[in-house]
Amino acid sequence: MSEKAIDYLKENRDELLEKLNEFLSIPSISTDSTYKQDVEKAADFLVTYLQELSFEKVTKQETAGHPLVYAEYNGAGEDAPTVLFYGHYDVQPVDPIDQWESDPFKPEVRNGRLYARGASDDKGQVFMHLAVFEAYLKTEGKLPINVKVCIEGEEEIGSENLYDILLQQKEKFQADFAVISDSGMVAKNQPTILYGLKGFTGIEITVTGPDHDLHSGMYGGAVRNPIMALSHILSSMKDNDEVITVDGFYDDVEPITDAERKLIKKAPSEDYVQSTGITETVSEKGYTPAEHTMGRPTFEVNGMYGGYQGEGTKTIIPSEATAKITCRLVPGQDPEKIQQLLEDHVNKHAPSGVSVKVKKEKLSAKAYKVEPNHPLIQKAAESYTKSFGKETVFVRMGGSIPVVEWIDSIYDMPIVLLGFGTPEDRLHSPNESFPLDSFDKGMETLVYYWDMVKQV
Amino acid sequence: MSEKAIDYLKENRDELLEKLNEFLSIPSISTDSTYKQDVEKAADFLVTYLQELSFEKVTKQETAGHPLVYAEYNGAGEDAPTVLFYGHYDVQPVDPIDQWESDPFKPEVRNGRLYARGASDDKGQVFMHLAVFEAYLKTEGKLPINVKVCIEGEEEIGSENLYDILLQQKEKFQADFAVISDSGMVAKNQPTILYGLKGFTGIEITVTGPDHDLHSGMYGGAVRNPIMALSHILSSMKDNDEVITVDGFYDDVEPITDAERKLIKKAPSEDYVQSTGITETVSEKGYTPAEHTMGRPTFEVNGMYGGYQGEGTKTIIPSEATAKITCRLVPGQDPEKIQQLLEDHVNKHAPSGVSVKVKKEKLSAKAYKVEPNHPLIQKAAESYTKSFGKETVFVRMGGSIPVVEWIDSIYDMPIVLLGFGTPEDRLHSPNESFPLDSFDKGMETLVYYWDMVKQV
Repeated sequence: MSEKAIDYLKENRDELLEKLNEFLSIPSISTDSTYKQDVEKAADFLVTYLQELSFEKVTKQETAGHPLVYAEYNGAGEDAPTVLFYGHYDVQPVDPIDQWESDPFKPEVRNGRLYARGASDDKGQVFMHLAVFEAYLKTEGKLPINVKVCIEGEEEIGSENLYDILLQQKEKFQADFAVISDSGMVAKNQPTILYGLKGFTGIEITVTGPDHDLHSGMYGGAVRNPIMALSHILSSMKDNDEVITVDGFYDDVEPITDAERKLIKKAPSEDYVQSTGITETVSEKGYTPAEHTMGRPTFEVNGMYGGYQGEGTKTIIPSEATAKITCRLVPGQDPEKIQQLLEDHVNKHAPSGVSVKVKKEKLSAKAYKVEPNHPLIQKAAESYTKSFGKETVFVRMGGSIPVVEWIDSIYDMPIVLLGFGTPEDRLHSPNESFPLDSFDKGMETLVYYWDMVKQV
Repeated sequence: MSEKAIDYLKENRDELLEKLNEFLSIPSISTDSTYKQDVEKAADFLVTYLQELSFEKVTKQETAGHPLVYAEYNGAGEDAPTVLFYGHYDVQPVDPIDQWESDPFKPEVRNGRLYARGASDDKGQVFMHLAVFEAYLKTEGKLPINVKVCIEGEEEIGSENLYDILLQQKEKFQADFAVISDSGMVAKNQPTILYGLKGFTGIEITVTGPDHDLHSGMYGGAVRNPIMALSHILSSMKDNDEVITVDGFYDDVEPITDAERKLIKKAPSEDYVQSTGITETVSEKGYTPAEHTMGRPTFEVNGMYGGYQGEGTKTIIPSEATAKITCRLVPGQDPEKIQQLLEDHVNKHAPSGVSVKVKKEKLSAKAYKVEPNHPLIQKAAESYTKSFGKETVFVRMGGSIPVVEWIDSIYDMPIVLLGFGTPEDRLHSPNESFPLDSFDKGMETLVYYWDMVKQV
């Protein structure tokens, strides 16, 4: 039955691409107020499209910032599940503009890729969903599932208003599960299920010694050096085996199962040496780099500074030294508890003769994970494989996507991350593009998926 | 016999102070080319004074920078020793000028102190020597010792040309011993012999990981963090007992003798907590802060930096981290050998996954020390005590005075550091001053000293 929808997509490919290009031509840069009208225009494009599809309650919902596009489809009947579809229509700025080979807002196809700002992140992927809805409605007269559409205009500026909206209008966005297409595959044409994201927390440590920089000749030998004190504190927190040595840090970590280890092994992994210029990879003792990046917590010093930074030499004992630290957390770990453990450790390891202050970063998030063998995930893998003709790999990601954590914490619904981007898409950079392969096969995947989950 | 000279100084005190004021009124700021003529004028003042005293070979010796004033006195006869007297006539800038309570170049006496730029560092102390020569010549018709005068105009800008002059004109400056009055006493009216200075060496360590800053979510767990790597390296170099843990670092250190420990104990020491705002002092295990600052080598991180230093959080693995390190060395230690030991240690402790580069700082110097029981030192202590009426204390200093190291390395002659400044003199700061007590008693000390060493 889904074949008809697929045929529709094939037959109307040119018209759909033309319509996508119209969407991509709107410079909906959310961070720059010069483009405020264009951001509105992109929202209007979606509203019009959803109205054409006869979705209900189509609204451009005003926020303190850019509007959120909401719509519902309830035609699948009460027995069919309801999916919350999340995406965003705003895009990143285009600087440096001179590095673009074609106008970022005049979409152009070169070598099988569609070049335009937003082609991959996230207008292209949002459009694919709407086109699939169109294909079903035009061929079957109805969708296999009920839908709640939530497409925001502020993702690239931190989704400033979304959390409050989701929290305050819980009923409105309630669904059986969520689908988000704002991520990628590990390689082109490699079906990829992202089934976990890391959480996040951070602290800043400031070590203060003397109340001003001191002459190292007159005071060296009587005064503790704050940089050296901070180095001792930091090196007590993670050893050279990349094991975090903070008491209790791993206590609540959900272990990587043997099944997961197999999944991780199957996923093609980036050649880190090649892509980053390092001499060799390092990872936590007992874990491969892929296992560590995907499934084990990390501890990174993001910045450190103290004393003299200029040319040559200045023979001082500096007054102060500071380190900024963030940790990526895995399921089981509580960000606030981890912050407390970090603070306790620092205070315990602070040497005499200096004062040590720990500032807890406000921004923190729990990790997110859905079981890879959850039926909704397994169906997604099947759809992918059916369309791309290749076994789906399952990965977890070291990064965090705030909206995922919010949907998880507010609604506790399964979230399916169905991304079709590729590592070559150059998100946020000049010459962003999206492979037409992904456009075609991704829409097929979605057609199969909605058909497969109509009874889940 | 020296009493006549002392009487002369007392009787002519007003005239001498007036003459000193004339010298102090010349703004001989060596670092600022605006004052080039004034620097010359200060040199001319000295040339005129030395000519009035009938010194021989009085010359304003041109250099690539400011001139050096040279003169000789050979009237003491062949059996008398020859002293090389070093001082400098240039001064520091006066900024911030609005913090001066009186014009820095209009000397003014307040509460027993003479306020003027250079009053203590070093014009005041240079003038005392010339005044003492005058007193001897006017009363005895001769000096007890032969003299070579070397007064430079570039001390405050690093004595740029002096080393080459001393090296190339070795014969000219050759003497039996040197006397320098460009330092201070540990407290006002506390006779102080400075019998040792520390040496100096330094390295800069740069740890490089990835060739650009990386997203901590995508790469954390596969890539070594350069800041953490550097922290491990640094913390392996000095422990929390303030013991330097670099292999071989202490091998050649001349130990502090029991006799020295007693001398150090006798010297009044600064209240570091009070003066620097630290919570408590720390020093090498087994040594007091005074022993460590005076007689044990030190290792200080003068600056460290890497990664993000702005507000809030940036979740990166930084590409690079750098630390600047200097060590103060004691007699026995060779700066180049120490640099090599530091470099070897760093290379040995560099963890995998990062590249570590060590840059050796060019500027380095050996420590200087004269035996406190050397007859020239003992005579100096006696002279001090006779004049100030108080037992002389013996101290070593954690700092370095380049000219001392140069005279030591080029001539290998004993150097007597006869300083009359006080900790309250505010060298290099607004409201520099010099106590008139030091002026009077310091000149007396010099009268006694020349008389005592005429047969040493």
